[in-house]
Amino acid sequence: MAPKYKLIYFNLRGLGEPIRFLFLYGGIEFEDIRIEFEDWPKVKESTPYGKLPYIDVDGKRITQSTAIARYVAKLVGLVGKDDLEDLEIDSVVDTLIDLKDVQVAYYYEEDETIKQKKKKEIAVNETVPQFLSKLDARVKENGGYFVGGKLTWADIYFAAYHETTNLFAGENVIGKYPHLLAVADKVYAIPAIKAWIAKRPVTHH
Amino acid sequence: MAPKYKLIYFNLRGLGEPIRFLFLYGGIEFEDIRIEFEDWPKVKESTPYGKLPYIDVDGKRITQSTAIARYVAKLVGLVGKDDLEDLEIDSVVDTLIDLKDVQVAYYYEEDETIKQKKKKEIAVNETVPQFLSKLDARVKENGGYFVGGKLTWADIYFAAYHETTNLFAGENVIGKYPHLLAVADKVYAIPAIKAWIAKRPVTHH
Repeated sequence: MAPKYKLIYFNLRGLGEPIRFLFLYGGIEFEDIRIEFEDWPKVKESTPYGKLPYIDVDGKRITQSTAIARYVAKLVGLVGKDDLEDLEIDSVVDTLIDLKDVQVAYYYEEDETIKQKKKKEIAVNETVPQFLSKLDARVKENGGYFVGGKLTWADIYFAAYHETTNLFAGENVIGKYPHLLAVADKVYAIPAIKAWIAKRPVTHH
Repeated sequence: MAPKYKLIYFNLRGLGEPIRFLFLYGGIEFEDIRIEFEDWPKVKESTPYGKLPYIDVDGKRITQSTAIARYVAKLVGLVGKDDLEDLEIDSVVDTLIDLKDVQVAYYYEEDETIKQKKKKEIAVNETVPQFLSKLDARVKENGGYFVGGKLTWADIYFAAYHETTNLFAGENVIGKYPHLLAVADKVYAIPAIKAWIAKRPVTHH
């Protein structure tokens, strides 16, 4: 019997959406459990490490969003053709996460002086364009995908997150990179994902 | 012919040491290239994403330390027995990285008021003990290893980094967790790693 999967996350796209996209791509059933913020304090204690998301596989509960995305990517056949391609995929995904961390630090900075400094030095002028221009060039050189000229979970991960990238950066940064935009468009055009986007809960990010 | 591997990193243990341990464990030759800080500005431009470490596999250069560690773990046979064990290993490693990020943010905080706040709320009292006590319990339940009752790259990763954990936390936090300490001791007793520790460059972290 196929295992029963549950994804437990906040009522957000955020770190959960790449995992949801991967399940949907592979047509694998999963329970999409969403914790409202007002319920979080009482749910927190019951989670493996006090964090969301976690996955429940037949009752076994495991945390860490990227680890979960990689696991589901294996289930749905969106990994590389060999260890070196998997290294490249992991490298792209972790670079996207570095980018996210820079943007999140900027977005949630409460001190306006530090925030402006972060905006100038890190969030918009330096790290973000440096990473994005290199990633854009990589997609161009790889036949429209991040790795190996075909769809992998790196493309899914990017597409699921790219609108949040714009939100956290405070401007349409992805719009400047045509090859990256094309990756998102290709993923959004996958029928199961297209249908999901049309009906998914509307959330802040 | 076996590929030629080069690891390019700063003259530090830091993010490079887990990768070095993995190569050493498997007896795989690699060139351990160390960039001194004064040379970094001129080296930075030549790196894939302006960051270290990166690995060079027969001339192909790929960045991101965790991705590289996972790749070398596959080369040396320190991965899980199935996808679910690999998910658990990835989850442990990413939890160790979350821990590191909290400690690094504390260690490098320049504002003394914010630093004390971070020390109290995050670095020592809350996140660090919460994660470490859960990880310690996990090792106890798993026969002295993080996953599956046998050595995997999660154990190597932890051991290679645990002294830096203490440095960044500003106290011997690992010393309070006997099962975690035992993991480090076991890894340090592996002959190739023991020999390396006796001769490796002495660096800040």
